[in-house]
Amino acid sequence: GIVGAIEAALAGGPLAGKHVLVTSGPTHEPIDPVRYIANRSSGAQGTAIARALAGLGADVTFVTGPADVAPPQGVRVVEVESARDMLAAVEAALPADAAVFAAAVADWRVASASDRKIKKDGSGSLPVLEFAENPDILATVAQMKKGRPGLVVGFAAETDDVVENATAKRARKGCDWIVANDVSPATGIMGGAENAITLIDETGAEAWPRLSKAEVATRLAARIAEALA
Amino acid sequence: GIVGAIEAALAGGPLAGKHVLVTSGPTHEPIDPVRYIANRSSGAQGTAIARALAGLGADVTFVTGPADVAPPQGVRVVEVESARDMLAAVEAALPADAAVFAAAVADWRVASASDRKIKKDGSGSLPVLEFAENPDILATVAQMKKGRPGLVVGFAAETDDVVENATAKRARKGCDWIVANDVSPATGIMGGAENAITLIDETGAEAWPRLSKAEVATRLAARIAEALA
Repeated sequence: GIVGAIEAALAGGPLAGKHVLVTSGPTHEPIDPVRYIANRSSGAQGTAIARALAGLGADVTFVTGPADVAPPQGVRVVEVESARDMLAAVEAALPADAAVFAAAVADWRVASASDRKIKKDGSGSLPVLEFAENPDILATVAQMKKGRPGLVVGFAAETDDVVENATAKRARKGCDWIVANDVSPATGIMGGAENAITLIDETGAEAWPRLSKAEVATRLAARIAEALA
Repeated sequence: GIVGAIEAALAGGPLAGKHVLVTSGPTHEPIDPVRYIANRSSGAQGTAIARALAGLGADVTFVTGPADVAPPQGVRVVEVESARDMLAAVEAALPADAAVFAAAVADWRVASASDRKIKKDGSGSLPVLEFAENPDILATVAQMKKGRPGLVVGFAAETDDVVENATAKRARKGCDWIVANDVSPATGIMGGAENAITLIDETGAEAWPRLSKAEVATRLAARIAEALA
């Protein structure tokens, strides 16, 4: 509306008046009331991206799993645990001008999750975990027939053949960009302060130098502002 | 030695000169380079116990998994990830006058842990996780033939039949005391600020009122000081 447009103009910045959705952090998938499957995402990169987008004037909805780092100031925070919770929060937050899926979403949940703590029964037998595929949040949004955000950005955490895998992922998911990074333990990126990413779009792959996660976020936010301009 | 005894006497407190080992926090059991199995232990109770013991003058070795809360001041901190790492750190820290096993150690690890990130292969097939039993740190120390700490305290996180299960656990593990608590999600204890414990020793079960985790720690440390006096 007019008031929103005036507020955005007053707030300033190239993303004023734009709604950008950012997901961040890990998801936790319950095994039983005390155990869960997690991943090593600290939420640092997604948090930095949300902060940078807000700094350019965007109206940011920040959907975050249980992260180590605190969410940024000046964004709308939605806290979730599991992948299914995250999809529901994303769908509730749409429409958006752009969506950046930086969360490390679990591919699988435990289909046989128990309401009671699984105990050692003394027989020496081990638990059996049955898995079910989680919803694919990136593909779900990237392939929306109606109301798809104008720019959909996915992330690919790879340990091998980073560009090849991430390029294939971009085509398979139907998203516009993939931010690919090498999360091999030797890189120290997962949970660390720096990131070395490759941005993959329809024109190919662009390797960025190793930068702090804040610098990666600043560059990516500027690119998003260009794309939405 | 004489110097240590003099230092302890100068430091004061009923536990001066006593070495107490405390384990705390969750363990993380790797699935692949980015995923792991965790549990909802925040490390708050174990941290409070270590702080209370140090406050009574004990020389505390604090072996902690990846906890949410920072370790206390004035203790020797050993950081570990998995149950196997924790056992090795415990064995390296012995001998001790008392050992308090407050950590929420994973019963099982993933036997089929992968060096590479497990990927969706497009076939729709789901990963299979094979488990192996982790070492039982409490039982290992409680049943030591030589060099067993004079007081071995275990914890039991139960969701059903708390006293019955914890009493059976005390006998099965061979420890002196069990600190039992009800971690049903409805209690809010796991990850919360309060605890309602039952102390089980050779004389039976003593239910404590619902207290802050700091108050539970203070009471337990005082009991340990009495037992070692």
